[in-house]
Amino acid sequence: METYTYANSRKLFERAMKVIPAGVYGHLGPVEGSMVPPSAFPFFSSHAEGAHLWDVDGNRFIDYMCAYGPNILGYRDEDIDHAAREQAKLSDCVTLPSATMVEFAEQLVDTVDSADWAFFAKNGGDVTSFALMIARAATGRTKAVFVNKGYHGVAAWTKLPGNPGIAEADISNNLYVDWNNYQQLEELVSRHPGQIACFMASPYFQGNFVDNELPEAEYWSKVRALCTKHGIVLVIDDVRCGFRLDLAGSDHYYGFKADLICFCKALANGYNVSALCGIDALKSAASSVFYTGSYWFSAVPFAAGIATLKKLKEIDAPKRLYEIGKKLTEGLVDVARTHSFNLNISGELPMWYMRITDDESQIIHQEWIAACVQRGVFFTNHHNHFINAALTDEDILYTLNVADDAFKAVRKLHPQFV
Amino acid sequence: METYTYANSRKLFERAMKVIPAGVYGHLGPVEGSMVPPSAFPFFSSHAEGAHLWDVDGNRFIDYMCAYGPNILGYRDEDIDHAAREQAKLSDCVTLPSATMVEFAEQLVDTVDSADWAFFAKNGGDVTSFALMIARAATGRTKAVFVNKGYHGVAAWTKLPGNPGIAEADISNNLYVDWNNYQQLEELVSRHPGQIACFMASPYFQGNFVDNELPEAEYWSKVRALCTKHGIVLVIDDVRCGFRLDLAGSDHYYGFKADLICFCKALANGYNVSALCGIDALKSAASSVFYTGSYWFSAVPFAAGIATLKKLKEIDAPKRLYEIGKKLTEGLVDVARTHSFNLNISGELPMWYMRITDDESQIIHQEWIAACVQRGVFFTNHHNHFINAALTDEDILYTLNVADDAFKAVRKLHPQFV
Repeated sequence: METYTYANSRKLFERAMKVIPAGVYGHLGPVEGSMVPPSAFPFFSSHAEGAHLWDVDGNRFIDYMCAYGPNILGYRDEDIDHAAREQAKLSDCVTLPSATMVEFAEQLVDTVDSADWAFFAKNGGDVTSFALMIARAATGRTKAVFVNKGYHGVAAWTKLPGNPGIAEADISNNLYVDWNNYQQLEELVSRHPGQIACFMASPYFQGNFVDNELPEAEYWSKVRALCTKHGIVLVIDDVRCGFRLDLAGSDHYYGFKADLICFCKALANGYNVSALCGIDALKSAASSVFYTGSYWFSAVPFAAGIATLKKLKEIDAPKRLYEIGKKLTEGLVDVARTHSFNLNISGELPMWYMRITDDESQIIHQEWIAACVQRGVFFTNHHNHFINAALTDEDILYTLNVADDAFKAVRKLHPQFV
Repeated sequence: METYTYANSRKLFERAMKVIPAGVYGHLGPVEGSMVPPSAFPFFSSHAEGAHLWDVDGNRFIDYMCAYGPNILGYRDEDIDHAAREQAKLSDCVTLPSATMVEFAEQLVDTVDSADWAFFAKNGGDVTSFALMIARAATGRTKAVFVNKGYHGVAAWTKLPGNPGIAEADISNNLYVDWNNYQQLEELVSRHPGQIACFMASPYFQGNFVDNELPEAEYWSKVRALCTKHGIVLVIDDVRCGFRLDLAGSDHYYGFKADLICFCKALANGYNVSALCGIDALKSAASSVFYTGSYWFSAVPFAAGIATLKKLKEIDAPKRLYEIGKKLTEGLVDVARTHSFNLNISGELPMWYMRITDDESQIIHQEWIAACVQRGVFFTNHHNHFINAALTDEDILYTLNVADDAFKAVRKLHPQFV
């Protein structure tokens, strides 16, 4: 197979470096570990459709990052875009909110098992921060427990000591436990009686550079019981998993009920909106916190969100994403095996994490990912991937062919290995 | 004149109260003081165009709140919406950013006098929080100085002690000075040598319930010199004023240069994007802070922002907004005088604040505002207003007629007053 080159991406990146700090920032940029080596990756897209994106050099990719989550139905899904365009003919960001806000809240309350109400913002971090504030307002307590290496956004309170830009005080009320370690959590709670406002965690552990970890049997039911017993608000950060595992919420998927649940990303197929859902007992605390933003009442994202929820139900999206994920990952593991590599799949299939286990340095893994990208399959190295419903059997077949050719190329570099 | 009724707004609000905390939250809701008495105001819009919005009861309003700022060219401006629709045919929120991000950054750097670079996010609060982090990262200091009763968003660090949901630690590094009080700032700096990372303020003081206050002569030049002398990062929060006073930045308007300048609201005529601009000396500190969000690379708001900057320049928007603001406020003051009321105008004209000074309780003011709203002119009580470029002479004439009739109605209630 021919491999892609990225002359236009590189030229545009040089322009970007002049006027944007780091050129492309965050995990979408070449600076962070997910695009290693940078030479293998394009940096800028020109257009996108369905499961595919095209870069500024005209190369087509099957995109398994899905904008890091927002693309759940396929880029530029006509049903969603149509709903957005129709709303845009009426209004978007206006002094008064529109009926779409109420309808979207009603839809979410109907759909999400633990939700008695919904509140809308723009970032996942807006709603994780709001959840923390509500928990503090409701309990009169200040401490909060998080999972080590969990990700809840970029606000100062989400960061680790020594991270640039934060003060010690910003995280002085944070406590941490290891994922899946109920014992630790129980001990922490007894060491801080009446002081812990909330426990916030993702439904399962999606670390970077490591295999993802599902909750152990009864982990969540024990955590739920502990929180209830001690008046601790249980916050599920469903920003990344939301609507991919279960339309009723990932807490529902794992058989428990959150007190607050945070959504973003897949909520409106890429239109800019996030949501916090919660139980009735926390509604008045939520009302007591002054919390708003310039664009939080924009009607177009609400219309897109209503259309997205409708279509996700119609096609039973989580079931479909599991099926696609199963077919794809089983295929990839098989292809790896034919080249004598062991590819380990972890996490839930609609957002699988993968790692070649034959090389602890993960360099062979990075070489294989790079070879796939340069052949038109957009994977990333050390972050979970995302499945979207527009992926076809043809896309999967194409992916497996690329994976095969990429393994061949890596094997050529390391004939002696394994 | 007939007065409006709001049966559908009220029905929709009842539905909202069931599924949304506070029904309509933030300053757009009837709970906060800006919609007093709530009975005078509609709560939900059905559509909007140019300078007008229509509520869900079919009432038309000339909207002087402009979505609290975003509407600068007129709702659904065809030039901006066309650019957005064309971009939407290509891509919006994708795994890789598009060339629009680079172009928009280049445009901002060309337009904003103090900007060597630009960084994009979604909320005004995203960029004020980022500015604080950059100042801390660059200086290695933790304290920050703000103006008493200034507004920089809804993050915990922006709030006052005792506000629901925050911990003492969240604001333990904050210091406060009164607006326009250079002496206080100088004293504070000498009391905390080498400890202050930044001074953050709006270009002028836009308090609620009080007349707005412009900077005193030489206030900003003295502040600028003090910050430079002590290595304190000078952050201008231009979220509210940005592009209404001066396309080159409100710091440029007042004759000084900020180190960091925060934009949102009018930046893309309502499309969801905010921006932090800064000087070269802070670019590497900005790169060192991991800062990103789910939708921060969406291409449609960038395309809208590019088109908005272009049109703002073409029509020389600030000049036009000043002219409209002058004609309108002079007219309102005259109308008030014919009814023996004194209407005081404060702040800059494109975002004037007004207050009837004859009654310290401000009840007559609230009654007059209510009477205007019920006659189709959307004012608010205790917050500055916003001018947009779509306002016509006919709109202003209509507004003055409504203001006149509203004063008549208030005079009838208080024949003895003044």
